[in-house]
Amino acid sequence: MKEQTKIPNAVIRRMPRYRRYLKELHEKGVSKISSGEFSRLIGQTASQIRQDFNTFGGFGQQGYGYNVEALHHEISMILGLDKEYKMVVVGAGNLGQAIINYTYYYKSGFVVSGIFERNPKLIGIKINDIAISDYENLEEYVRTQQIDIGIICTSVDSAQNVADRLAVAGIKGIWNFAPVDLVVPESVALENMHLSDSLHALAYHINKTK
Amino acid sequence: MKEQTKIPNAVIRRMPRYRRYLKELHEKGVSKISSGEFSRLIGQTASQIRQDFNTFGGFGQQGYGYNVEALHHEISMILGLDKEYKMVVVGAGNLGQAIINYTYYYKSGFVVSGIFERNPKLIGIKINDIAISDYENLEEYVRTQQIDIGIICTSVDSAQNVADRLAVAGIKGIWNFAPVDLVVPESVALENMHLSDSLHALAYHINKTK
Repeated sequence: MKEQTKIPNAVIRRMPRYRRYLKELHEKGVSKISSGEFSRLIGQTASQIRQDFNTFGGFGQQGYGYNVEALHHEISMILGLDKEYKMVVVGAGNLGQAIINYTYYYKSGFVVSGIFERNPKLIGIKINDIAISDYENLEEYVRTQQIDIGIICTSVDSAQNVADRLAVAGIKGIWNFAPVDLVVPESVALENMHLSDSLHALAYHINKTK
Repeated sequence: MKEQTKIPNAVIRRMPRYRRYLKELHEKGVSKISSGEFSRLIGQTASQIRQDFNTFGGFGQQGYGYNVEALHHEISMILGLDKEYKMVVVGAGNLGQAIINYTYYYKSGFVVSGIFERNPKLIGIKINDIAISDYENLEEYVRTQQIDIGIICTSVDSAQNVADRLAVAGIKGIWNFAPVDLVVPESVALENMHLSDSLHALAYHINKTK
């Protein structure tokens, strides 16, 4: 499988979804699926799917279809899901606690090992056996513990400052839940989860859907 | 402001973000912004922004720029944020509780009024003063209380069934957090928040970003 240097972001964003379907198929005991069936299941043309796979060098056998387990494995490897990621959560308010609890039940290799907060009332409190630490110690922790991912669950006002400090400390990726668009160095990967943008788009569609 | 019947989804998805920036500008005391400044702030070309606005009949005065408060108001109206939305959460596990707590602090008109769960151990427990109800009563509640939005926080296995029941009960929109793609009737708006897809895309970028 040859890999090209620059894969379009839209393709990357579709890969976790392909993987999700393959995982479900595998769990249902399906071992092989034709490209036509897979296309109908995914709701994209077979040629779009083939084109996406071709950006990674292509998988599957033409005229035979896809081997579900092998393809699931290949996509998992491409996404880097064979590795373990150490994460910190910054901001242990409502949303932060929610995300900590959510990731706690993650089956794959994403583990929250530190929680950081500025509010002195929260420092020391344990969430899922992890004591909340003082925000002042964030950079040292990220550096010494070689943390991969920083999850930002602070207010809008603090989020960029947190991102800056995480970047300086050598973080590899930021998963941002603060409703703000962050500026990060090229060396830091960034994914945004803008919950309220999604809810507002839903409100629009509710009013337009008759 | 004339409105066209079919606005591309990509445009809709950008509107909450424009609104978010305008809200921030307004809070910072900025009353007017040139289209060039707004473009730099948003990170999109001025012509793209103008084109997006034109799909709604256009706002702002050419050669003068945008009135921040008026534009924020216009976009809020377009998105339907002048209204109040009644919501139910289905699935009061980890993620469901997180979303309930998160929306509780919402400043705008999205209010969770009911929580439904199949697990008898959770029924009756209160979250933010709302007692968790038996999942069996979901449809009647949605119908009689004229609920607008159903938030699905169940497992993958249950999610489609929940969506079907919400649709039958007359729900207007579904905000889906279950990592599965749901099939809903044309009359029901659907927004997905696939947290793990986002985290998996982040993992990919971490491995590719050097």
